[in-house]
Amino acid sequence: MSTVAPSDWTTRPAPEGPQGWIERATEVAAVLATDAAARDRAGATPYDEVRLLKDSGLVTLLGPVGHGGGGQDWPTAYRVIREVSKADGSIGQLLGYHYLWNWAARLVGTREQWEAVEAEAARQRWFFGGAVNPRDKDVVVRDEGGTLVLSGRKSFSTGSKVSDVTVLEGVLEGTDSHVFAIVPSDSDGLTFHGDWDNIGQRLTESGSVTLDGVRVPWSAAAGYVDKAFRPRVYNTLNVPTIQLVFARFYLGIAAGALETAAVYTRTKARSWLHGGHERAADEPYVIDTYGDLTAKLWAAEALADRVAGEGQRLHDAPDAVTEQDRGEFEVRVAAVKARATEVALEVTNRIFEVTGARSTASAEGLDRFWRNVRTHTLHDPVAYKRREVGRFVLDGALPEPTWYS
Amino acid sequence: MSTVAPSDWTTRPAPEGPQGWIERATEVAAVLATDAAARDRAGATPYDEVRLLKDSGLVTLLGPVGHGGGGQDWPTAYRVIREVSKADGSIGQLLGYHYLWNWAARLVGTREQWEAVEAEAARQRWFFGGAVNPRDKDVVVRDEGGTLVLSGRKSFSTGSKVSDVTVLEGVLEGTDSHVFAIVPSDSDGLTFHGDWDNIGQRLTESGSVTLDGVRVPWSAAAGYVDKAFRPRVYNTLNVPTIQLVFARFYLGIAAGALETAAVYTRTKARSWLHGGHERAADEPYVIDTYGDLTAKLWAAEALADRVAGEGQRLHDAPDAVTEQDRGEFEVRVAAVKARATEVALEVTNRIFEVTGARSTASAEGLDRFWRNVRTHTLHDPVAYKRREVGRFVLDGALPEPTWYS
Amino acid sequence: MSTVAPSDWTTRPAPEGPQGWIERATEVAAVLATDAAARDRAGATPYDEVRLLKDSGLVTLLGPVGHGGGGQDWPTAYRVIREVSKADGSIGQLLGYHYLWNWAARLVGTREQWEAVEAEAARQRWFFGGAVNPRDKDVVVRDEGGTLVLSGRKSFSTGSKVSDVTVLEGVLEGTDSHVFAIVPSDSDGLTFHGDWDNIGQRLTESGSVTLDGVRVPWSAAAGYVDKAFRPRVYNTLNVPTIQLVFARFYLGIAAGALETAAVYTRTKARSWLHGGHERAADEPYVIDTYGDLTAKLWAAEALADRVAGEGQRLHDAPDAVTEQDRGEFEVRVAAVKARATEVALEVTNRIFEVTGARSTASAEGLDRFWRNVRTHTLHDPVAYKRREVGRFVLDGALPEPTWYS
Amino acid sequence: MSTVAPSDWTTRPAPEGPQGWIERATEVAAVLATDAAARDRAGATPYDEVRLLKDSGLVTLLGPVGHGGGGQDWPTAYRVIREVSKADGSIGQLLGYHYLWNWAARLVGTREQWEAVEAEAARQRWFFGGAVNPRDKDVVVRDEGGTLVLSGRKSFSTGSKVSDVTVLEGVLEGTDSHVFAIVPSDSDGLTFHGDWDNIGQRLTESGSVTLDGVRVPWSAAAGYVDKAFRPRVYNTLNVPTIQLVFARFYLGIAAGALETAAVYTRTKARSWLHGGHERAADEPYVIDTYGDLTAKLWAAEALADRVAGEGQRLHDAPDAVTEQDRGEFEVRVAAVKARATEVALEVTNRIFEVTGARSTASAEGLDRFWRNVRTHTLHDPVAYKRREVGRFVLDGALPEPTWYS
Repeated sequence: MSTVAPSDWTTRPAPEGPQGWIERATEVAAVLATDAAARDRAGATPYDEVRLLKDSGLVTLLGPVGHGGGGQDWPTAYRVIREVSKADGSIGQLLGYHYLWNWAARLVGTREQWEAVEAEAARQRWFFGGAVNPRDKDVVVRDEGGTLVLSGRKSFSTGSKVSDVTVLEGVLEGTDSHVFAIVPSDSDGLTFHGDWDNIGQRLTESGSVTLDGVRVPWSAAAGYVDKAFRPRVYNTLNVPTIQLVFARFYLGIAAGALETAAVYTRTKARSWLHGGHERAADEPYVIDTYGDLTAKLWAAEALADRVAGEGQRLHDAPDAVTEQDRGEFEVRVAAVKARATEVALEVTNRIFEVTGARSTASAEGLDRFWRNVRTHTLHDPVAYKRREVGRFVLDGALPEPTWYS
Repeated sequence: MSTVAPSDWTTRPAPEGPQGWIERATEVAAVLATDAAARDRAGATPYDEVRLLKDSGLVTLLGPVGHGGGGQDWPTAYRVIREVSKADGSIGQLLGYHYLWNWAARLVGTREQWEAVEAEAARQRWFFGGAVNPRDKDVVVRDEGGTLVLSGRKSFSTGSKVSDVTVLEGVLEGTDSHVFAIVPSDSDGLTFHGDWDNIGQRLTESGSVTLDGVRVPWSAAAGYVDKAFRPRVYNTLNVPTIQLVFARFYLGIAAGALETAAVYTRTKARSWLHGGHERAADEPYVIDTYGDLTAKLWAAEALADRVAGEGQRLHDAPDAVTEQDRGEFEVRVAAVKARATEVALEVTNRIFEVTGARSTASAEGLDRFWRNVRTHTLHDPVAYKRREVGRFVLDGALPEPTWYS
Repeated sequence: MSTVAPSDWTTRPAPEGPQGWIERATEVAAVLATDAAARDRAGATPYDEVRLLKDSGLVTLLGPVGHGGGGQDWPTAYRVIREVSKADGSIGQLLGYHYLWNWAARLVGTREQWEAVEAEAARQRWFFGGAVNPRDKDVVVRDEGGTLVLSGRKSFSTGSKVSDVTVLEGVLEGTDSHVFAIVPSDSDGLTFHGDWDNIGQRLTESGSVTLDGVRVPWSAAAGYVDKAFRPRVYNTLNVPTIQLVFARFYLGIAAGALETAAVYTRTKARSWLHGGHERAADEPYVIDTYGDLTAKLWAAEALADRVAGEGQRLHDAPDAVTEQDRGEFEVRVAAVKARATEVALEVTNRIFEVTGARSTASAEGLDRFWRNVRTHTLHDPVAYKRREVGRFVLDGALPEPTWYS
Repeated sequence: MSTVAPSDWTTRPAPEGPQGWIERATEVAAVLATDAAARDRAGATPYDEVRLLKDSGLVTLLGPVGHGGGGQDWPTAYRVIREVSKADGSIGQLLGYHYLWNWAARLVGTREQWEAVEAEAARQRWFFGGAVNPRDKDVVVRDEGGTLVLSGRKSFSTGSKVSDVTVLEGVLEGTDSHVFAIVPSDSDGLTFHGDWDNIGQRLTESGSVTLDGVRVPWSAAAGYVDKAFRPRVYNTLNVPTIQLVFARFYLGIAAGALETAAVYTRTKARSWLHGGHERAADEPYVIDTYGDLTAKLWAAEALADRVAGEGQRLHDAPDAVTEQDRGEFEVRVAAVKARATEVALEVTNRIFEVTGARSTASAEGLDRFWRNVRTHTLHDPVAYKRREVGRFVLDGALPEPTWYS
């Protein structure tokens, strides 16, 4: 990364309005871009990059204005995620997950809880990680009087190692009830193993974590009042919101790939010996490929933005969200996921055709875009997203809210 | 068509706001849908259908409020075109072209001219046709004192045969100047040959026309002041606006195809003997196909809507439009055209896979969707639209305004 | 069709070897091509065309040499079907079905039966039709002493109306046993309704047929010995053989589409006004499209030929065919079907992009290729063919022999 | 790699017939497969792997029988390359290039030269590398009396570092004539820099090489008689032969990817939580994907084999090859290249969809297939291959023989 001093960021005023936040994100992205390929190769833990997200204020985007937060909405958050992901897919994912963890308090917690969390998070510019996998009962929560004690292991925990606080999740012993709680990431008993070694999104620190008697007061158990869980309908918005975050970093990575490739084609690619054009950028198949990929990307982005707007209307009145509202939103998000996945894979695979043989040098790092998209788009099978859309179109069926739909 | 009496339409108040206009279009579409397949087969001249567009008021959508027009903007017009095209691609095209011809006065004419035309058109609910092909010098305009006399032949003239007025175009004898003029469609010397016989958009009456000494006063020559043509920069918006109209009926036809297919799958299709499902609508490949096609269509529509909005900002301040504004808009429209073309072809080709063998009966008419899209998407080669986008992305190049870019 | 006198064909010697038969087919195709588009539009019953198949000797290709047959094998039959289909998909289908019906005796009948049928068919140059649909029990066969009496209705009966003999099928009353028998097409009680009216393969006379007490001697009941059915393992080759025939006319139609388009592009298509090329055939996107479609077609054809060879090895030793042999052949055929379907749809859809707007004139009839492929490829869902291949690759599973797998 | 002792290979008799050679290749592939992913990650120089190719005799496949060579033809060589590439794309490429370099003597050299080279190569089981790039004049050849002295630098030199002999190429000083010569890879003045660091085909040692006064006798200058170059028409077969080798390792890598994925899906992949199937291998979308990819791969392989046969007919009578023969072969090869490229990219990209999220672990190494295909398919732009096919189909144009067509 560049040598911009932290102070240069921290002394700047907060951005103004959505456009201001997006510009701030673009500035952050410019810093990340300077050595994104090299950092990806090195696989170093992104302490500095998370510091940049904090110093630049991006982490506070959704936070309450009264406590130093940006007071922005999800559509702006999505676009900020996209900008950052253009430069660095891993950091874009970290930022997206941070927004989700931060906001999760609002879904699961009581009003007192989430107001407190959001205020504190904005004031202190917390960076959030999380170790949550409600699919398995891999962490047991024991009720020891006024204190909950969590023990077990999570296979994946994105960002926790570089975070200030971590969302933990487990099953209350002897029950089927899940407990969510936010704890300091340096809590006793919490060990991050740094063993994330996958082909893409290499800097997300998504490795395993061990919980060895992590202690949490009952009051921190989100949504529990007198040891009983009080859910809201609104919390079923978690999956569509999560999936929109995913889609945005896929599209951001694809946009970054296309822009990086265009610079390469313009400045480094050699035209074909027998093609009759001086510049690679003048070869018809090159131009056609850029036109095709760009049109596809623009369409996917337009859909993502539109559905972001549809979702914001639900977020704006969370307690008025009906099952029909939620279901239709989920279906629309499923379509966004499907398009973002397909387009991002196509773009990141095909850019090489317009950059040429020499662009496969490892030092160029152009494969990281495909590796990043390929890795995260498998989070849950996109075939089941198409299924949600198909069932809705055919039968008006709404997806049943689960941890993945 | 159904037997709704004209009076049922004409006595109704004008729609309110964009949503009202779209609902009106949906009602019109419902009437058209009742026998769209049969009318397509019969290939009958759409007198009744144009009457419906007039009686329902749809033809006045863009017209000035003070004269009985709807006072709506282009984004609403596009969505109305889409709704009508869902039921009948030919009529959707006729309506779209009508909006373009009607609005063309504003591009080419003087303020006095276009204000007069729009007022009269709204008051009388004119339906517009046109016989314009500036690519060839196929009509000669002779200046006989105060009167222009047009003679020649146009190969294609959409809608003129069923129109009240027609936009004619020709080249002023001895010059390279084009003259545009609106004349009554029953003018002396104007003969529509009704020889449009193509595989799709069969009801658009796009046949040839002969001009045999059609007389027009100089004052009707759009944009001419003292026999000199005074163009505006704004008139370069014609191509992107036209192309957005095209894209909207492609997308409308595709949406109609998908909806028609879904009804068929749900109500008529047989599940596969060895598939293990009772309903075709429960077969995984059927659901997946609907999901895939829907997601693609939604993305193309979202892009079309977004770009419609971008264009409207230019239409709102026509004289402030810069070359950069115009060029970027054209590039965005080119992407819309590319996506609309590809998606509409895919949808209309693939619906059969989810309706099955019996759905190829001619009486079902499911092939008309593909024939319609296939025919009109060739208006100008979409490869050159991708080229516009590619050049812009690579070099920031703006397309030079021509009759096709 | 051209005015070649029947005698010109009938006085010619039989073709020599596979190459001779293919050349003969090419000659026949040349005749069919002269008015294929017009005949498709007219939808006239193909009496003359079937006469041509007979006069040219093509109908005897598989027949025993000793009785005037060509003595050729299936790979040659497939290639002949392809050649004819290039000119006229309907006639290609009729010829393919003819080969299947003729050969079916060998699958189901006793040696005495099929030897007699094949000899007689070759000697008299019979053209075969068929009214078989074992999926439904729509025809009942009553045993009236030594005679079987068939009554009922079949929804589809390809070619029977223009045939000499027809294969009938029904269920023996009070049993689940199917009976197949070859009868003269002008048998009493047999009525062909000529009601095939679908969007493609319009000249195949695939309409419904009524059986009103059609009488057949027990001895004509294929495979029945003393009123008991004696099946062979070999008869499970019917489905893969049928499906290879299908695939061959899909590929033939696609090849015809591509060749027809290439002639159009070369001779009629106009280059794009703003493309900078004099000939459409020099535009990069046009060349690229032809290259792409051709490569895909060649690959599908190569697979079809290879699998034809694999199948012939089974046909050569029919009684040695094991379940594993049969299963692997069916899987390979399923892959051929999948590729032929996809490639033929892509080719017939996309040719318009390289022939241009004027090529959509109905008189050109370029849409018939797509309509033909679109119609017949729905015979049974190709998704289940991909499933056969997928299961084999994943688990080594062999498709269970049914009427469709 | 496994610990099979070299002696186990060297004491075995030579394979019998094409099938024997393919089986031998399969055995070699089994050894390579044991640690292919790990070796790819490590990026270690493949001394042991080349040793295996030599010990197993595979390197002698094309060599003269009288001198210990296999006496096989190109179609068998292609299939052996495919088998090896299934396990290890880099080693498959090294073997393919070896065959090409070895055989190049026959293209460029005099009969005496190539007979001597082939005899010696077979006897000593030479492994060939090459440093040839006729596109640039990067190596100068100075005639110092009876000796040629080569100096300069080649950016890419596949396999030389692990080879016994290397084909060098340069331009005779003061002329435009290229000189090719085979030299021992440990010749004085020859330095391999081991600087190949690209995203795929990582073990091919394709780095740069410096020639610092490498001395070669005039008699080793291939095809030169009395210092004058005597070319053959046949030598224009070099490009199609090279491109078929390329296509075969693309297809081999794709086949390896699909088989590796199928094992993963069967043994490690988890079925989707909400899919209703116990095994991932039973999920419809998984089966469909395997079916689709397999059908595409089979079709590309069938075309590659067919064209290999067409080419062998030319190789069998090299001096009878006409320009038309050569041109049509090149066009057919271009189609093979186009299909192999597209299918291999699709397969290696999409396998992840059927192996799932955990399969992106770096230890699995499933991305190497895509990285390998992605890297080498850029050797020369496949768009120009489609162009060759398109021009031929449209105009019967034959590609002009160059170093790339």
